[in-house]
Amino acid sequence: MKKIAVLGSGVVGQTISAKLTGLGYEVMLGTRNVSSTQAKSEKDMYGRPPFNEWHKQNPQVKLGTFAEAAAFGEMVVNASNGQGSLEVLKLAGKENLAGKTLLDIANPLDFSKGMPPSLTVCNTDSLGEQIQRELPQTKVVKSLNTMNAYIMVNPDMIPGEHNVFLSGNDADAKKDVKNFLAQFGWKEKNMLDLGDITTARGTEMLLPIWVRLLNALQNPSFNFHIVVGSPLKM
Amino acid sequence: MKKIAVLGSGVVGQTISAKLTGLGYEVMLGTRNVSSTQAKSEKDMYGRPPFNEWHKQNPQVKLGTFAEAAAFGEMVVNASNGQGSLEVLKLAGKENLAGKTLLDIANPLDFSKGMPPSLTVCNTDSLGEQIQRELPQTKVVKSLNTMNAYIMVNPDMIPGEHNVFLSGNDADAKKDVKNFLAQFGWKEKNMLDLGDITTARGTEMLLPIWVRLLNALQNPSFNFHIVVGSPLKM
Repeated sequence: MKKIAVLGSGVVGQTISAKLTGLGYEVMLGTRNVSSTQAKSEKDMYGRPPFNEWHKQNPQVKLGTFAEAAAFGEMVVNASNGQGSLEVLKLAGKENLAGKTLLDIANPLDFSKGMPPSLTVCNTDSLGEQIQRELPQTKVVKSLNTMNAYIMVNPDMIPGEHNVFLSGNDADAKKDVKNFLAQFGWKEKNMLDLGDITTARGTEMLLPIWVRLLNALQNPSFNFHIVVGSPLKM
Repeated sequence: MKKIAVLGSGVVGQTISAKLTGLGYEVMLGTRNVSSTQAKSEKDMYGRPPFNEWHKQNPQVKLGTFAEAAAFGEMVVNASNGQGSLEVLKLAGKENLAGKTLLDIANPLDFSKGMPPSLTVCNTDSLGEQIQRELPQTKVVKSLNTMNAYIMVNPDMIPGEHNVFLSGNDADAKKDVKNFLAQFGWKEKNMLDLGDITTARGTEMLLPIWVRLLNALQNPSFNFHIVVGSPLKM
């Protein structure tokens, strides 16, 4: 597997794409409208430079539509805005995603009522499950959605042990994702497989405390570590 | 402050009550119906012995109705089942709770559709907020709700650093609760004040991953540690 599609041109898509090209992968970043993404001249909501400035620093990353990227990739990363992910994946095309592992990093956050955001789906469903239902031929693995983008590809930014969670129905797809996580620098012992895709409810519902920790700590450079003690009788 | 009310006769209420009497506090445990709680002869859903067996081991703990306990306590602990907490607090009596700090440990878990439970309130509201709205004269502090009961009163069960969160509108009430946490063995640096009572949405929404971690680890002896790295530009 050498060709990867990354859907989404924001900070997560950029960070994952740059890391993957650095690791020797061929990457196509998918966006809704290639020319308007290239034409952006303003900083984003986090004050980061426009896409084209980043792209000049990362010219190895190919740029295409969602459908072109999905057709190109042997594996696909959903790094789109969670509120738009179902539409993005529709544009990417069911047939272009069939049979492939889809690493879903998106969170269904609703910023429409200001900060902190709430979730548009949670508790009895999750975005990960919605995507899996829409794309039954695709092997959806939810992972990396519980931390800042820079930590995803550089876990050593955070001192000591801390975790990345995985949720998905297909054991081989989870192996694919674990292989990427290892290349990103994650230790096997810190990859916590929660079970099938319904467990994505648990990790997506970490976002409400994540945004409040961001506010309390005034620093996005943190992650969750599950510290385990001696077994207790259950 | 020497007299504490603990509302709820389950594992959380028992564990907190026993710890507090061990620390020299006078404790009244409140229950819906004193004689039926005393008459229970069956093990609970976790296979723990009936209330009276526990009470024989902990005779210092007084037993009363919710209202008697709430009137007795200078501080009140809500250790009732989260689905019933609003009713329990109504029975306890607004007037008996007015002006007091209420440590709310309950989670609004819905077990009616089997395991894992979902939440009956979340995302745009929380049980902590509902209680604060119902009891505007009471100083509600949500804390300790993100871990197994035994860890609450014995954090050293878990190796290394790990966190307890606090949410509440009243700074003095949070100080009261921190004082108890310190007596339970919590280090000041591991008490993470998230902000006002709306941040209880974040900690109550940790329960969905908590129950899935319980399933993945097959061990309730774990806790969350927020590991912080060097500040990142936000």
